[in-house]
Amino acid sequence: MIRAETKVFPVEALREFSTRVFLHFGCPKEDAEQAADVLSCADLRGIDSHGIARLHSYFELLSDGRINSEPKVEIVRSTLSTATVDGDNGLGLVVGAKANVIAMDLAEEAGSGWVSVRNTNHFGIAGYYVLKALERGLIGWAMTNSTKLVAPLWGAERMLGTNPIAIGFPGKKEPPIVIDMATSAVAYGKVEMARRKGNPIPSGWAIDKDGVITTKPEDMIEAGALLPLGSDREHGGHKGYCLAVMVDMLSGVLSGANWGPFAPPFALRQEIEAPTRSVGKGIGHFFGAMRIDGFIDPDAFKGQVDEYIRVFRATKPASGTNGTIIPGDPERQAECERRENGVPLVSAVIEELRDISAKTSIPFD
Amino acid sequence: MIRAETKVFPVEALREFSTRVFLHFGCPKEDAEQAADVLSCADLRGIDSHGIARLHSYFELLSDGRINSEPKVEIVRSTLSTATVDGDNGLGLVVGAKANVIAMDLAEEAGSGWVSVRNTNHFGIAGYYVLKALERGLIGWAMTNSTKLVAPLWGAERMLGTNPIAIGFPGKKEPPIVIDMATSAVAYGKVEMARRKGNPIPSGWAIDKDGVITTKPEDMIEAGALLPLGSDREHGGHKGYCLAVMVDMLSGVLSGANWGPFAPPFALRQEIEAPTRSVGKGIGHFFGAMRIDGFIDPDAFKGQVDEYIRVFRATKPASGTNGTIIPGDPERQAECERRENGVPLVSAVIEELRDISAKTSIPFD
Repeated sequence: MIRAETKVFPVEALREFSTRVFLHFGCPKEDAEQAADVLSCADLRGIDSHGIARLHSYFELLSDGRINSEPKVEIVRSTLSTATVDGDNGLGLVVGAKANVIAMDLAEEAGSGWVSVRNTNHFGIAGYYVLKALERGLIGWAMTNSTKLVAPLWGAERMLGTNPIAIGFPGKKEPPIVIDMATSAVAYGKVEMARRKGNPIPSGWAIDKDGVITTKPEDMIEAGALLPLGSDREHGGHKGYCLAVMVDMLSGVLSGANWGPFAPPFALRQEIEAPTRSVGKGIGHFFGAMRIDGFIDPDAFKGQVDEYIRVFRATKPASGTNGTIIPGDPERQAECERRENGVPLVSAVIEELRDISAKTSIPFD
Repeated sequence: MIRAETKVFPVEALREFSTRVFLHFGCPKEDAEQAADVLSCADLRGIDSHGIARLHSYFELLSDGRINSEPKVEIVRSTLSTATVDGDNGLGLVVGAKANVIAMDLAEEAGSGWVSVRNTNHFGIAGYYVLKALERGLIGWAMTNSTKLVAPLWGAERMLGTNPIAIGFPGKKEPPIVIDMATSAVAYGKVEMARRKGNPIPSGWAIDKDGVITTKPEDMIEAGALLPLGSDREHGGHKGYCLAVMVDMLSGVLSGANWGPFAPPFALRQEIEAPTRSVGKGIGHFFGAMRIDGFIDPDAFKGQVDEYIRVFRATKPASGTNGTIIPGDPERQAECERRENGVPLVSAVIEELRDISAKTSIPFD
């Protein structure tokens, strides 16, 4: 649905603009194209918050010299099936993609590959890396920690990021099952949007500065926190907290990155107090890849995934709904629609892109 | 807290009784002790629903010849870091433990080990397998699929098990972080307990036969379903659904076991209609193990885990709570208390154990 204040752009135009912006800051051509590819993927799949809408933040960080545009991404430790990668403070969009390739290469040799990454920055949508594994016929996993926004259960302050988990399984005739989910009850962007519109937020999304559940978006934004998936104890908030800790351990602690409340903020202008100290390098990611034929005949597996999808689509629908969908359906539908009709951008994002254009002389319209 | 209708037993007495019951059905000594060890672990850690309270169900299945007491657990496919194991329809308590050892052995050779298991049965608490990995200095993962109880988001029928995820990370001076969580909003046992007491259940736990959220436990038990973690769409119910699918894929589909609504029921007397068809063998588990030194210096890692625990314990407490705890705290506290004072059993469980005693002539009192 395209609202009045949006304008539609072909994804190729957005990809080209992003690529030129990254080139402008000295990113090697391959890296610039790589970074733009992750953003375009988010734009196509309808994850608007993680696409070109974030280019201005990358632009500011690169302008400010806070991100290394020519990182040497290195394996610092490895076994047959595992590695730790140091991202040399590069763009997460580049470091993540390179580390993911390392995981996939390990998997092809050893059956599975698991890579923990330190000294990196935000990597865009976790689902992107899983899609890359699917292209190589692998089961792909991706996780990352991120700037604090979420309170642990029974806590009254931000201690964890929204720490997403993504995993994908290929089908045969059916499309793949692609899971990509934050471990918070809701995305921060939904709280921001409620504030802009002057709407209350549902109980269970957020707490105020005292750790009390609030329906006022400003209570969360000013001094509160998001709740973990499950919200309160009664509904399983301890489980969402556990998942966020798991992602933080695998991405942050295992690699030697910053973790928990010490993960550095994504954007300069984000009104987040800087971490009180550093306990590692940058933020952390975690990638996994598994060869299906390391477990089962891949053709049989994909046939079962097809059957799985059909069985779940045939679930008796809950009253008042259109029935069960398959993880990855909404993103795939957005991608079909946007490849055809273009990517809608809201005016605030268009203004930011024009600002970049004015400052870099890279044309945008 | 021990209520009037409970009686306390030393864990060693319960372990001994369970071992003798498994021996009675022809389990080899090592297997009988292994199976009893998993049950005792649950009893010690306060997961009463998964301890000796389940012995009568195992007893019935073994009496009925539905479980193979002398399984040949075999690797049917493998790479350097992965394997598929066929459990030969043995007790999950035995098959799970053997497959977990295979994962750990692979990890010691290849840096990580990942084992998907088919043709198995319920394996007790997922946390048990993670604790075994911690004993060997490894990061351990365990998952399993199980009998359908949970509806996918926007579905009105049971399609998924409560499909737990467990993972553990060792500390140095602090105890390990041990996560063990079902991917449903709540355990089935809590709905059953509410019905017994005549209490309503919180909104967000379950749906009725039409897929509408209900606060009547009987609506769920008779023809409804549990909701996934996150409950409804607004609170992230799609995420709990995704996690349950992930566990089902890794445990069931990847191994060639039954998945989704086709997972066979755990207990004979459970009033669950039998699956309409079979799409694989038994249920499925998934185990992972990772060598910490495949990623980072283990001593440095464990030091950071200690620091992590201290930082999270120091989170500002939410108003009206005792503050943030660490995953694994409640189970460890139960274990300390019960090692000292014994395991409380409710009279219904004691009666079941006496019934087994009467039928097998194994003394219990």
